[in-house]
This record gives sequence, structure tokens and C-alpha cells, in this order.
Amino acid sequence: MVNVAILGFGTVGSGVAEVLTKNNDHIGAKVHNQVNLKYILDVRDFPGSPFADKFVHDFAVIENDPEVQIVVETIGGAKVARDFTERALRAGKSVVTSNKELVAEHGYDLLQLAKEKNVSYLFEASVGGGIPIIRPLSQCLAANELTEICGILNGTTNYILTRMIRAGLSFDAALKEAQQNGYAEADPTADIEGHDACRKICILASLAFGRHIYPRQVPTEGITGVTLADVGYADACGRKIKLLGRAIRRDDGRVCAYVAPHLVDGENPLAGVEDVFNAITVKGDAIGDVMFYGRGAGKLPTASAVVADVMDAAKHLNTRKYLDWGPGGDDVTVSPDGLESGWYVRARVDAEEVRRRFPEAGFLARPGATADETAFLTGSMTRAALDGKLSGVEVLSAFRMLEE
Amino acid sequence: MVNVAILGFGTVGSGVAEVLTKNNDHIGAKVHNQVNLKYILDVRDFPGSPFADKFVHDFAVIENDPEVQIVVETIGGAKVARDFTERALRAGKSVVTSNKELVAEHGYDLLQLAKEKNVSYLFEASVGGGIPIIRPLSQCLAANELTEICGILNGTTNYILTRMIRAGLSFDAALKEAQQNGYAEADPTADIEGHDACRKICILASLAFGRHIYPRQVPTEGITGVTLADVGYADACGRKIKLLGRAIRRDDGRVCAYVAPHLVDGENPLAGVEDVFNAITVKGDAIGDVMFYGRGAGKLPTASAVVADVMDAAKHLNTRKYLDWGPGGDDVTVSPDGLESGWYVRARVDAEEVRRRFPEAGFLARPGATADETAFLTGSMTRAALDGKLSGVEVLSAFRMLEE
Repeated sequence: MVNVAILGFGTVGSGVAEVLTKNNDHIGAKVHNQVNLKYILDVRDFPGSPFADKFVHDFAVIENDPEVQIVVETIGGAKVARDFTERALRAGKSVVTSNKELVAEHGYDLLQLAKEKNVSYLFEASVGGGIPIIRPLSQCLAANELTEICGILNGTTNYILTRMIRAGLSFDAALKEAQQNGYAEADPTADIEGHDACRKICILASLAFGRHIYPRQVPTEGITGVTLADVGYADACGRKIKLLGRAIRRDDGRVCAYVAPHLVDGENPLAGVEDVFNAITVKGDAIGDVMFYGRGAGKLPTASAVVADVMDAAKHLNTRKYLDWGPGGDDVTVSPDGLESGWYVRARVDAEEVRRRFPEAGFLARPGATADETAFLTGSMTRAALDGKLSGVEVLSAFRMLEE
Repeated sequence: MVNVAILGFGTVGSGVAEVLTKNNDHIGAKVHNQVNLKYILDVRDFPGSPFADKFVHDFAVIENDPEVQIVVETIGGAKVARDFTERALRAGKSVVTSNKELVAEHGYDLLQLAKEKNVSYLFEASVGGGIPIIRPLSQCLAANELTEICGILNGTTNYILTRMIRAGLSFDAALKEAQQNGYAEADPTADIEGHDACRKICILASLAFGRHIYPRQVPTEGITGVTLADVGYADACGRKIKLLGRAIRRDDGRVCAYVAPHLVDGENPLAGVEDVFNAITVKGDAIGDVMFYGRGAGKLPTASAVVADVMDAAKHLNTRKYLDWGPGGDDVTVSPDGLESGWYVRARVDAEEVRRRFPEAGFLARPGATADETAFLTGSMTRAALDGKLSGVEVLSAFRMLEE
């Protein structure tokens, strides 16, 4: 029998308890061992819950119980969660988490600690909810030299953008609707400002390129600057506005990682990813492009990814799973400012002036455009070159185009 | 050091040699061990090849060399390949293959033999080329009770259908073009008659539902009956014709598996999968829908999947990978004839007669339609009910609709 403790009985934690219980026979058969939920740690009591007899309030009970071999951390944040994770690993327990903030900020240290103690630290659920991506990246695509990861990593912002595109809602109205439907939190900052997507691209890039990449190394722009005017111009040129997290390995080995809205060509499979769905494309030298697609969040999809990791840890109690990357550092990343791409620009400037500054510009029209704005697509250039050419112009929006 | 032998130096085998060599440092670092290509078995000699010194012509050399721990079988077919695979497993070597025919016909027996000898039998490359699907199914989605697998599993037929839809080519012209581009073989039977897709859905269904499902248990219809008229009518109702392999687990545990052309709604992500790309959707109780998308064939994508398995086998030389299902039998499957769905029908019949037989029918129009045919969509019913209602009518085409 393998005993499991869950830390935190919120959305994901209660989903894990539910999946572990509901599919217990099936899970036991696959693991070749019974998987037993022994404790749930929460500050609250849940007297009416079917798990009422499992609640404890003191982490030390779990830490000091040698029968507990796997700890599921669904507390979130990088403080208490970090302390409990370190203590669990030090006590020789494998830890499974959905906590992207903790992995993005301290993944390297925690993986090193797990290695020292010969236990597993697994976090499939930290990126893409129920979409399998961490394991495919680390195992299935292992034969490839990976060159780029690019994805729609946040369901809340994709829902908002989809509603702006499909229903013509303003950003504020779409955000409100997302909150009413439970797709956005009361404080939506982490989603709409891109922080959530930033943590996820950090984890994916660390795994794909082998060195820890910290959120502070990844310039991040959210979707609060995207307007219906931009959505309209994008539509006029057969493109959709999507918030993308990207990490590109340059020939010199450095990684250019950033989060920003992009104009994505309608033919690109990422353009068809709508509502709260996520999709992640991976480019490798041998494999070409592979895409993973599914619900990026939600109680049961995320819980199912956590439980798959629990099962994996249960099958490998004595042979820790390799999941590993090297230390971070300033030499790991490079600013996206040097990355060339075509740009979409909307500015208070007349077409004649644009033609003078960008002879190659393609002009865009949209229904209801006001006379004092001009929107256009530029040729391929760096951010610095773009800013130089736009010097003195009042820029309303400037987004990269995703080019294949 | 881990020594590898490749059986068969065709497209996939030579790709494996290339990826193993080109990415050798990277592979060694990930495996924590050097992976060395020791032998290549082929009946031919390749004097100019960079691997010329590795060729042997007698399998016994490999079988009897205790230094060879992993055998890569890329011979194809279910005769010689089966014999060599059994002998390699009996000799205590792990076997990695891209051979879908062998796995679909004899997977259960070979997995049992591998289990007895405590070695691995891995076949990620047998389905979806470079798309990771076998490992995600067996590991990442392990916490789910899976309910359905549905996919575009054959790149050749998807290319032909795409060219019919996009360029208006007839089936024969599109097939010819596919052959000229190297996407279809000189004898395209296995692809266009659906046999290749059938083998793949057998492997996926066996893994997902836990019992071996044999190709003979899976009714299979290819795309030779799809005409430009059908493509036109599908387009008129916002749908695309796609060859799908499906396996649905019924509540009584039996599996309904089949291969046939379907009309897929334009909003379904499968509708957007074009050219030689493959996509596989998996439904689970916890996870909802997840889709895997990428190049389903090709030398390097397939080789990269084989090499990922080689790396996995190399990391688990002493702890065999679980990859397992139970024996087959007549009680495992159930005919798709009892499966209800809406149908697309094109027949030599007038609209009045159709209205009499199918009061719910939705009629379709297309440019260039001839007066003697009528095309329509029916309500949900079984194949038997459809055939009954169409009794005495000359049916030109009848395809299921994929309903969400």
C-alpha cells in the first residue's frame, strides 16, 4: 500500500481527493499497488465532507509519519508551500504539485533536493492543466534538440480574447463575463498581466533547454492593452490576437523567452484555439512541430494530471524519476528585444507618414475605424528598430506577428 | 555504455541511426550513459554509408552478443519481424519498434514475453509518427477512466482528402499527386483502404481499454468511395470529410471500434487537421478532451520517437517499463452497427421520397449537382435503421457524422 497526503483542500486538492477515491480500483490496478489517501492538511475543517476523518491541521503529523510516501502540494504560492515541500522531500517523501509559481521560482533547488534524497518531485499539473506536456517534453521528445516552445498557456486570457473576437465585447466586458463564469478570479491580475503564462513558459523552457529560467528573466506583457480596434484590424488581415508565451533557443545556446500578445495567422493551428483551451507547440530538430491541446485549467483536468504523477511516483518509489535541469544565471537568457519579426502597429499618424517611415508597410482597414488612426503591418525588424522608426509617433498598439 | 542494434536499414532504420549519431552527446547526457550503435542488420550492404562498418547480415550475431541490450526493429510486417522480436526478447534484450502491424497483431503475446523476461517492449513510433501518444496514454492520462479515442491516424489519406477539398482534385488525381510527392507508396492499398489506420486504432484501444483488440475485430472502410460530390456537399453544410479511427468504451465495458470516413463539423479541431498531419483526441472522465497533433509520418519524426523509446529503455535497463494490456477475445468488442449517429447520404432518389422516409432530413445543395441525386443529413440512428429506411434506394455514399 502507498499512502498519500494532500496539502490544501481547495479546488485542485479536493479534485485530487475525488479522483483518487472515485478511480481507486483502476488506479490500484495500474500501479500494481493500492494507493490510499491517508491525510488532508488544511487550516479549515470540513465536517460534512466524505473525507472528514482525514483532515489534520499540523504538517508535522504528515512529515513524521513514515507511512506517507507521497505528498501532494496544492497550496499555491511560494512561501508555506515551499517550506512544506522542502520538509517533505527532506523526510524522504516524493512530492507532486500543481504549483507553477513554486516550480518557476524554486524548481531547480527543489529538484536538487529531491535528487539528494532519491525521491521524485513531479509537476505535470503545473502547466496546461490536464494536457500532458511535462512528461512528453522530458521523455517522448527526449531524442530531439528542441528549438522552440510557443503556446497559449493561460485559459482566462484566451477566453477574454475569444469573447472580444467572437462577440465583439470590450476587454472590460469580457473580463466581467469571465469572472461571472468562474473563469477569472476576483483579482485577475496574475492572468491578465501575463504572470501566470510567464511562470508556465519558465517551467517549459527550463525543462526543454536544461537551465533554470526565472520569471524575472522573462519580459511579460499581458492583454490589458488589447482593444476591439486591434481585434478588428487583426481580423481584416486574417489573423487572431493571442497571448503567447515563447521560448526560443538561439544558436549560441541562449534562450530568448517572453510573454506578449501576438497576431497569429488564421492558418496556424494556434489561431483555432478558443475559449479556455490551451495549446502548446514544440519544435524539435527531428520531430518538426508537435502540438498539445486541451483544457488548460479546471478542477478535474488538473486533478487528473496530479493523480497521474502520484501514480508515477507510486510505481517508482525506489527508482526516482529523472526530471532535471541545471542552475539558472544571467548567461542563460537573452532579451527578446533583439528578436526580429513583423509587427502590427496602430498609431495616431497619417498613412503618408507611415509610408515614409515604413516603405514596405501593408495598411489595414476595419469597419468603424476613426480618421485619426492608422494601422499597418511592418517588415521584419527588432523592437529597437521599430521604436526608432516610430520615434515621435503616438503609438496606440504594437504587437508582434507570429511567423512560421 | 548501452549497445543498440537496428534491424532493417530502410527509411525509419536509417533515420534512427542518423538521430542516434547526430544527437549522441545530448542523448548520453539525458540517459546518464553513453548510447552506442553497435550493429545494423540488413540483407543489403551499404558500402558508401557512414555506418558501413556496423552492418551484419545474420541476426544470430546480434542475438548472441550479450553486450547488445536494446534492439530496434524497423523491418515491418509480422513474419520475420515477429521472429526476430521474440528471439531478442528471449535473449533478454529490450525491443523498440515502429511496426504497427506487428503490435496490432501480436502485441499482447510480445508484451507477455517481455514481462516474463523482465525487459521492455516499446512502440511509441507505431502510432502518430513523432507525436507522443503511447506514453501520454499509458502514463500521463493514467488517472482517467478513458471513454473514447478518435483520430486522424493516416497521413496519406488525410493528404488526399485535403487535396480533394482544397484543390478540387478527384480521388485518383490526388492519389497520384500524393505518390509523386512521396506521401503514398506505389501500392497504396494499406493506406487508402484504411488498414493502416485500423492497426493504429487497435493499438491505441488496447492500451486505453486494457484488452487486446485485433484488426479483424475492427470494421474498416477506406476513402476510395469518397467523391468530389461528397466533398462539395460536406462543404455546403460547414463540414469536412475525414477518415477517422474511433474506439468507444461502452458502459458495459465492451469496445466499439471502427475506421470510416466521417463528416466532421468545421468547429471541431479535427476539421482543421490538414495535409499529412495526424491528430488524436482522447476523452477521459476527469480530463475532458485532449488532442495531440503533429506530423504522423516521415523519417525523422518517426525516428525521433524510436530514439526516445531507446533512451527510455536505456534508463530502465533493470526496471522494465510497465506497458501492458490483457488478452483479446470475442467478448472484448462490439460491432459499430449498433452505434447511433446522424448520417450523410447521397442517393439516386427524389427529395419527396426522402422526405417520406426521413421526415427529419436536412437537404444539401452543391454547385454542379446533377438532377438525379439527392443529398441529405439524417437524424441519429443505427446503421441497421439507416439501411432499413433506405431499402430499395440506390445509395451512392453514406457516411457518419462525428457528433460532439
